[in-house]
Amino acid sequence: MNSWGERFRLSLWGESHGEQIGVSIDGLPAGIALCEEDFEADLSRRRAGSAGTTPRYESDAPHIISGLFKGHTTGAPLTILFRNENTRSKDYSSLKSHPRPSHADFVAQQKYGGYNDYRGGGHFSGRVTLALVAAGVVAKKILGNTIDFTTDITHIGGCADKEQFTAIIAEAQREQDSVGGVVECCVNGIPTGWGEPFFDSAESLIAHLLFSVPAIKGVEFGSGFEAAAMRGSEHNDCIIEADGTTLTNHAGGIVGGITNGNELVVRAAVKPTASIAKEQMTYNFASGKVEPLAITGRHDTCIALRAAVVVEAAVAIALAELKLRA
Amino acid sequence: MNSWGERFRLSLWGESHGEQIGVSIDGLPAGIALCEEDFEADLSRRRAGSAGTTPRYESDAPHIISGLFKGHTTGAPLTILFRNENTRSKDYSSLKSHPRPSHADFVAQQKYGGYNDYRGGGHFSGRVTLALVAAGVVAKKILGNTIDFTTDITHIGGCADKEQFTAIIAEAQREQDSVGGVVECCVNGIPTGWGEPFFDSAESLIAHLLFSVPAIKGVEFGSGFEAAAMRGSEHNDCIIEADGTTLTNHAGGIVGGITNGNELVVRAAVKPTASIAKEQMTYNFASGKVEPLAITGRHDTCIALRAAVVVEAAVAIALAELKLRA
Amino acid sequence: MNSWGERFRLSLWGESHGEQIGVSIDGLPAGIALCEEDFEADLSRRRAGSAGTTPRYESDAPHIISGLFKGHTTGAPLTILFRNENTRSKDYSSLKSHPRPSHADFVAQQKYGGYNDYRGGGHFSGRVTLALVAAGVVAKKILGNTIDFTTDITHIGGCADKEQFTAIIAEAQREQDSVGGVVECCVNGIPTGWGEPFFDSAESLIAHLLFSVPAIKGVEFGSGFEAAAMRGSEHNDCIIEADGTTLTNHAGGIVGGITNGNELVVRAAVKPTASIAKEQMTYNFASGKVEPLAITGRHDTCIALRAAVVVEAAVAIALAELKLRA
Amino acid sequence: MNSWGERFRLSLWGESHGEQIGVSIDGLPAGIALCEEDFEADLSRRRAGSAGTTPRYESDAPHIISGLFKGHTTGAPLTILFRNENTRSKDYSSLKSHPRPSHADFVAQQKYGGYNDYRGGGHFSGRVTLALVAAGVVAKKILGNTIDFTTDITHIGGCADKEQFTAIIAEAQREQDSVGGVVECCVNGIPTGWGEPFFDSAESLIAHLLFSVPAIKGVEFGSGFEAAAMRGSEHNDCIIEADGTTLTNHAGGIVGGITNGNELVVRAAVKPTASIAKEQMTYNFASGKVEPLAITGRHDTCIALRAAVVVEAAVAIALAELKLRA
Repeated sequence: MNSWGERFRLSLWGESHGEQIGVSIDGLPAGIALCEEDFEADLSRRRAGSAGTTPRYESDAPHIISGLFKGHTTGAPLTILFRNENTRSKDYSSLKSHPRPSHADFVAQQKYGGYNDYRGGGHFSGRVTLALVAAGVVAKKILGNTIDFTTDITHIGGCADKEQFTAIIAEAQREQDSVGGVVECCVNGIPTGWGEPFFDSAESLIAHLLFSVPAIKGVEFGSGFEAAAMRGSEHNDCIIEADGTTLTNHAGGIVGGITNGNELVVRAAVKPTASIAKEQMTYNFASGKVEPLAITGRHDTCIALRAAVVVEAAVAIALAELKLRA
Repeated sequence: MNSWGERFRLSLWGESHGEQIGVSIDGLPAGIALCEEDFEADLSRRRAGSAGTTPRYESDAPHIISGLFKGHTTGAPLTILFRNENTRSKDYSSLKSHPRPSHADFVAQQKYGGYNDYRGGGHFSGRVTLALVAAGVVAKKILGNTIDFTTDITHIGGCADKEQFTAIIAEAQREQDSVGGVVECCVNGIPTGWGEPFFDSAESLIAHLLFSVPAIKGVEFGSGFEAAAMRGSEHNDCIIEADGTTLTNHAGGIVGGITNGNELVVRAAVKPTASIAKEQMTYNFASGKVEPLAITGRHDTCIALRAAVVVEAAVAIALAELKLRA
Repeated sequence: MNSWGERFRLSLWGESHGEQIGVSIDGLPAGIALCEEDFEADLSRRRAGSAGTTPRYESDAPHIISGLFKGHTTGAPLTILFRNENTRSKDYSSLKSHPRPSHADFVAQQKYGGYNDYRGGGHFSGRVTLALVAAGVVAKKILGNTIDFTTDITHIGGCADKEQFTAIIAEAQREQDSVGGVVECCVNGIPTGWGEPFFDSAESLIAHLLFSVPAIKGVEFGSGFEAAAMRGSEHNDCIIEADGTTLTNHAGGIVGGITNGNELVVRAAVKPTASIAKEQMTYNFASGKVEPLAITGRHDTCIALRAAVVVEAAVAIALAELKLRA
Repeated sequence: MNSWGERFRLSLWGESHGEQIGVSIDGLPAGIALCEEDFEADLSRRRAGSAGTTPRYESDAPHIISGLFKGHTTGAPLTILFRNENTRSKDYSSLKSHPRPSHADFVAQQKYGGYNDYRGGGHFSGRVTLALVAAGVVAKKILGNTIDFTTDITHIGGCADKEQFTAIIAEAQREQDSVGGVVECCVNGIPTGWGEPFFDSAESLIAHLLFSVPAIKGVEFGSGFEAAAMRGSEHNDCIIEADGTTLTNHAGGIVGGITNGNELVVRAAVKPTASIAKEQMTYNFASGKVEPLAITGRHDTCIALRAAVVVEAAVAIALAELKLRA
């Protein structure tokens, strides 16, 4: 449901147009230095504002209400709140009768008998990932300085040439459309031995969290789907040092579900933003007919841009959990 | 670790060359008709024997030792044991000094301080998936007859032409090599509304289980990685009926982490079997040098063939869990 | 840790002198009518003010920040915050050097390396039970109107005569001392069949929660410790109706860990308030000597009075969990 | 349900008259020396044979089928099986129509729609505690030699004079009746700091497990219910040494849910064996009348005798879990 983890246990809550988004993290060791400023770098990466992102700007200032004393974690749950500021008071009830394609509008209504908060997608909104990014910041504190994250957009609209990214997004935006992308997260400095057999493999925990992030439809490690096209002699990573260093890293740093000391490499496929201004034909429950829908409001042309730090947070959380178990 | 699920809760154990492999399933409703013969169909799909699979043949007869009374589940834990029959008594200690590339030999030794059972990979062996297949059979009983699984190999060695599969495998085998593949599992008949926000999305639970299966390095739903190359107008699945039926199914049957009543489509990338007879250079801890290793013994040329039913079982287990929660 | 439950899953946080106390409840069915006024009755039972309770008065107004829309639960996490108002700004650092006997001051300092928030006991304060009482109110909504709670103080200071209670408390207060008590919670209307074997017996879940409540040192069901003095012929509850009604109820409504349709009867022993104004000799870490300690501040003479509604809340939460699983 | 624990995670299964009882323990550190003989001492304490215990004798030889290699735990799940040997083949179907008072017969039938294995109580039988005792042996290995258990029967039939115990039991047996008792478990050598706030207090985990044991109806720590009759000045344990040693131990070694370095003292009330040969009036579902029932077969006159080692095992398991979390 909305909690995850055994040792780094987080619970999150909130809705797109509710009062607050929040997260409580339990299991934190006491004595970790932390302040509200520590969140700024990652929150700003998630924040809207650059080309291709929504003009709905929110300051997203974190407010720590428990678990911190004299600048350090106490061992009690650390709780962080974010106030929803810029929620437009427009009428969202049309989402009930004319649900947006590839959004959770329809399934949420079915699942919750119409009691779901449908405004802006409610609890299904990408806004909830704010809590995940905050938890990711705390997770990185646990991982410490020796573990480095490099997260990048490797593809937009199927194109791997970064020089073209801006143009691809601009074109989609002009056409009132959106475009997908691939996020790659590489982590260096992970020691050998994180991950538990059978069900708590490093891949299982990371993928579990990544597939919780709205818009992610694929996850692969190392060579991933390309591995399926390879020969064993080509894919196998031969060990060349006593510390387990391998000549290649097709495994993406995980063998048998356990980290092997190499760079962790994971990629997530982010679908194009479902909300587009371009007209779409879809079922209108009010009229009982398939009718055109043009989604107004402020939306990201390429949500993959803002998803990068969310992917990184998810990976960091899974790794913090694994570290605390190791 | 080695247990998974809240409502369909399974615990598994065993090693490749230990005495028994087993699984205990808790949370089963009472009154489900079940007998040992019910397992045969799926177990035979996992069993070796056909071209491209290992000649290590085991009868894999399931033995139910608890939770069944007068042919029905009782509501108490259902426990199924499998005896390991065909465990060759050869000396496996060379795996400690000369670990096989892309196997868990090295990481397991590091993680468990050398106390791990290294014979045939021990608990990291694919043989443990026998327990998963058995649990999958029980999961399908919970899902009932209205839910249909179609699981297929869509690619072998990067090739999508099924007519070529036999030749591709034969060639790899001749060259003492192995080859990867892609397994696709499609499920029809799932009602709208299975899956829980945030962390227990249908995708999260399915991917969690799939990435527990040895050799799986990628998982995608619906269009998956191709979605990342699409426009929103192209990817969005427009609703065309009052029951939520969509014109297309790029989402693969899951929106916002919740099933939407369409066919569930999930694909898993299976890496080539790591054990190959072909010589590989890799570190020998005994000599302290990189030295050639030729893995003898009986191995699958294309483990994707036998992985298909394991993928299906993993999907069935996740769906049973979701059904019992819905 | 600070979360509990699978189906009625609550996470709580906060410290005695922190900014806020809160609780988030996940797994709630959608469509339950709820408003902030619904909490008043139980919160007022926990609130200080009457004879024998602390003069630290707080309004304890619940503030719902997520999971509620148009007066009903949405199926998303319901989060309730309470602001700590009346936190005196005095210096609590003496608790570090001169820990209060039978308080968590010393163990918390040891466990958290001195990073714990020691002000007023921090996260170990009874103030955190505010979150439990709030969750109890929500639990009762799930249980519905057919389930009735009757919670009573049966003993104070070893005395079972309620007419004497006021005098006993007054005397203890005059002597700057405190006094313990027994709380009994009886629940009518529970159907047969709640509780799960083996570890999730109704008794296990209820006792788990009750022993989380500070000051509770004993829990018994039905005849409880008296059962240990009985013969089987005396203790056995003979069934006298087809619906399972029994002639006696020595079992307190639970047999084999499963509710049997009779009244649930559970009692909790509440120790005397550890904070007393009366001087006590205890170790002073600053001086390295055993020295007198007189605890100033506002304290309950008989914490059992305010614990009654907390006990009731704990029982309600366990029952809501069991109902959602049944 | 039938699994418990996060770090010392056990799953158990089996029925009184099924084929096997078993337990699988996950989360064990690798490298713990263990052999089947290690179980004998505790299993023999649970075994029937002495005065007041059932004449149903079973050898209860443990059979380790996974997780052990070369005499040490491997880090993979350790699974232990026990064959049910002495299951009389008599007809138990009368339990369906004429359920035994204070047994689970009636509630199990209601809960599982009649599909439960009713022979000898099925999964609700005390025989399942065999698995708990086995797990307790493993738990003690984790706790190590510096932690000592002393478990004793302090009361039988309300009497605290041990010299009278044999006579009390003999008299009950002569009268075809049974008698209850109190088991006290004291543990020395526990360091300060085990236990987690809020829900995973040491008392919560221990009580959770104890109330899973059939026949236990009360649990108290330290002064327990007597604490409710005390003044604070009398009950408070004043610290007298820098290591936290207290002058008295009314808390029973746990303050604020955390161990404080003193002796852990926990008592469990064990009800009289429900199965008695003496005639009882109870509902017969076949005739629709309240009719006399005389339970034949082999039963313990005082189940508290055999429960002692089960109580000790439950405490050991909870402590192992807490140690692995600390």
